[in-house]
Amino acid sequence: MNTKMGGKSIILRLELQTEQIHFGQLITVITENGGDVIAIDVIQTGSNWTVRDITVAASEQSQLEAITARMKELEGVRLIHVSDRTFLLHLGGKIEMKPKSPIQNRDDLSRVYTPDVARVCLAIHEKQENAYNLTIKRNTVAVISDGTAVLGLGNIGPYAAMPVMEGKAMLFKQLADVDAFPICLNTQDTDEIVATIKNLAPGFGGINLEDIAAPRCFEIEDRLRKELDIPVFHDDQHGTAVVLYAGLINALKVVGKRIDEVKVVVCGIGAAGIACSNILLAAGVKELIGVDRSGALVRTEEYSNTTWNEYAQRTNPHLRSGSLHDVIEGADIFIGLSAGGILKRADVQRMAADPIVFVMANPTPEIQPDEIEDIAGVIATGRSDFPNQINNVLCFPGIFRAALDCRAATINEEMKLAASAAIASVVSQQELNKLYIIPSVFNQEVVRRIRTSVIQAAIQTGVARRTPREFLQGDASAQAELQEQA
Amino acid sequence: MNTKMGGKSIILRLELQTEQIHFGQLITVITENGGDVIAIDVIQTGSNWTVRDITVAASEQSQLEAITARMKELEGVRLIHVSDRTFLLHLGGKIEMKPKSPIQNRDDLSRVYTPDVARVCLAIHEKQENAYNLTIKRNTVAVISDGTAVLGLGNIGPYAAMPVMEGKAMLFKQLADVDAFPICLNTQDTDEIVATIKNLAPGFGGINLEDIAAPRCFEIEDRLRKELDIPVFHDDQHGTAVVLYAGLINALKVVGKRIDEVKVVVCGIGAAGIACSNILLAAGVKELIGVDRSGALVRTEEYSNTTWNEYAQRTNPHLRSGSLHDVIEGADIFIGLSAGGILKRADVQRMAADPIVFVMANPTPEIQPDEIEDIAGVIATGRSDFPNQINNVLCFPGIFRAALDCRAATINEEMKLAASAAIASVVSQQELNKLYIIPSVFNQEVVRRIRTSVIQAAIQTGVARRTPREFLQGDASAQAELQEQA
Repeated sequence: MNTKMGGKSIILRLELQTEQIHFGQLITVITENGGDVIAIDVIQTGSNWTVRDITVAASEQSQLEAITARMKELEGVRLIHVSDRTFLLHLGGKIEMKPKSPIQNRDDLSRVYTPDVARVCLAIHEKQENAYNLTIKRNTVAVISDGTAVLGLGNIGPYAAMPVMEGKAMLFKQLADVDAFPICLNTQDTDEIVATIKNLAPGFGGINLEDIAAPRCFEIEDRLRKELDIPVFHDDQHGTAVVLYAGLINALKVVGKRIDEVKVVVCGIGAAGIACSNILLAAGVKELIGVDRSGALVRTEEYSNTTWNEYAQRTNPHLRSGSLHDVIEGADIFIGLSAGGILKRADVQRMAADPIVFVMANPTPEIQPDEIEDIAGVIATGRSDFPNQINNVLCFPGIFRAALDCRAATINEEMKLAASAAIASVVSQQELNKLYIIPSVFNQEVVRRIRTSVIQAAIQTGVARRTPREFLQGDASAQAELQEQA
Repeated sequence: MNTKMGGKSIILRLELQTEQIHFGQLITVITENGGDVIAIDVIQTGSNWTVRDITVAASEQSQLEAITARMKELEGVRLIHVSDRTFLLHLGGKIEMKPKSPIQNRDDLSRVYTPDVARVCLAIHEKQENAYNLTIKRNTVAVISDGTAVLGLGNIGPYAAMPVMEGKAMLFKQLADVDAFPICLNTQDTDEIVATIKNLAPGFGGINLEDIAAPRCFEIEDRLRKELDIPVFHDDQHGTAVVLYAGLINALKVVGKRIDEVKVVVCGIGAAGIACSNILLAAGVKELIGVDRSGALVRTEEYSNTTWNEYAQRTNPHLRSGSLHDVIEGADIFIGLSAGGILKRADVQRMAADPIVFVMANPTPEIQPDEIEDIAGVIATGRSDFPNQINNVLCFPGIFRAALDCRAATINEEMKLAASAAIASVVSQQELNKLYIIPSVFNQEVVRRIRTSVIQAAIQTGVARRTPREFLQGDASAQAELQEQA
């Protein structure tokens, strides 16, 4: 078990040789080092030894570390392990599967299983669409990763990626009542990933791809979108893009600029950078310049990264070249999805008036907000400890809720733009200011508004295969809807 | 929606033109046809129409069908659809995913998701085994089918197979607290199935294969067992075999015969027939003859079905040939996994004294029990409406509970035999008689006994990678165990 600590309390499991150490001595050591003993649980006791879990709280992490270190030195004490609340929350996994109804007797058993379940199977066999009524497909999304780009940790593999996917499944359920199931794949081969996901898709109403490294993630998503008839959504790309654009809608209101008149510099042209650029172009941005290690991407150059060549074709209309430092001159908006510290105060000073600076590198932003708060129009980051957090959690629960409810065949650009507008709308005109452009992930209005707007967009663009009752007009269509219920 | 009915109550959703029909007329029609109105729910109402759900019960299915037919004829009535309890239980699927703890605030969010989840990911990255402590792998089984041999329905495909897999997941949870997730594969290609399951395995602690047609199921299971380090168990084969042998252990006690002295005829040499034969050979049966369409399988013949050639090598030591009718002469035990009606009373009359007749063809047994109850020693079927049901539900929850709890790398023959003995032991010597050789699936003792016996067998055969506390001996090992908890 990992002994690093993040919370302000830990649980020490200690084996004490009772002839060598008294419990009081132990408490003294803990309190002398600034810890409080919160709880003591006796786990097991032998003739001359005892095993106890001691929960210790402290105001500083360093105190907890000092206490842990002291325990290792004490005569008659063996430190079995140290847990903290985060690890305890993960014990045995964070989600479970539950039957919706109990099987209490033979009659129940014969209905949910053999022999009577056969009639339900046949109803689906006769009409495959019935799978949406009669199986979990109606409400279930697969959260799938190959473990190659997990958080900021990189390629840590499918086993280590699971806790993130489980966390995502929790958020899907809690925020939008979507049943999500995490699947981490033991392959990093594009063809195998595509084939595997196609093969396992029948039981699911949507596929949320997660933490798959670029450029593989583009091909995987493109191919799956073409070959599956359910939505496929790479959250690292599109979730980020949707929430970023939501923030920008409101940031532009704060500084009084129009999206079709601004100059935008996007720094970091990976999966998220490309997706954010795409949504901004779809939203009407005319001048958008992408910058990466090679400087500003321009179509007159040839890059070994082929996605950059394609990107340069669609961006940088005035063929600006040079470093970030060169092209940021006069920009209205900086979008950072790159690395900590690469943006300087001097760069921001050379931007247009009231510059919008979205520095979303994690965990360290491209520039610390306090370095530029006096000169920036609006600042946003990816972190929760600054105002204006651009957080994917604002998007994925609601957009999948909408897609499932209208049985969307895909999640298209119009639906993403609708989701951005819905998120932005949660911050009212009265509330809006440079420190509050984006709602909290705990604001329950977010999912509701996304759902409504995204379903409308799906219906308008012809990808909804079901019209939920509240979107129908008039008696006749309301009656048609009744047919489908139950 | 399918309108066939199985239960004794149905729900009619009717649209009534209120100017053309009065509600009283409707009730009269229902009662005249032998139905009782149990409940009336108003679903929607317009100016001159109303939609109502009418729950109707009757003693006979034919009455419900007559009522449904009459509704279609009535002036001013439109039958929108008919539901029954079985279909209602399947609406939107039978299982859901639940977070084990709520995410109530920013602190919770930061622990189960970014940023703090990263520490948990790293702990697994450092030591892959930690996945068993810190993810759902500890308690989660995939229930996987390609939909090629679903119940008695045959190759109905992955969409239509889902209700069976969901039902299985319910039983896993309710009976043994195992979290099972259903995955139906959109391929019927052996290589693709193997590759897909290998790819999705990291998050699971076991794989329950289900309803995959022979002979593909053999190769799929064999390859996965070799290539994965978690148990892979084709329930149609091994679940059936384990429960069959459990029944036989007790049936032999009833008739006072020994397993190593009996002559056994197995009829139907498909996946289940082969698995049942294998467990009987492993349990000590000396003379076992397999019979299929070609008659008794004998090693001097060459069959186009290659699994039969291999089977004939290991069975039929006295090279008996001929039809079922020929080889059943003097047999002590008949095991039927074939088709309804193929066993005759005359065949049973030619068996040894007190013949044991297990006729497990579904839904129609090889012979109706009442045709032979006067001459058979013990009769068992696959059905719940006769005594002695050989039901897989007795095995899979408990055997996976055991495998997960001791982190078994596989489920081997010794573990299966242990499971059979455990199931048989639930029927006490005092209770045992020809009409009660096997416990009910609702007997809670079943999973408990299987768990204990199978874990012991796993430890003894060296496939347990963890020793649960109650199986440890002495102080020292108890302390070692503490290390691993939490």
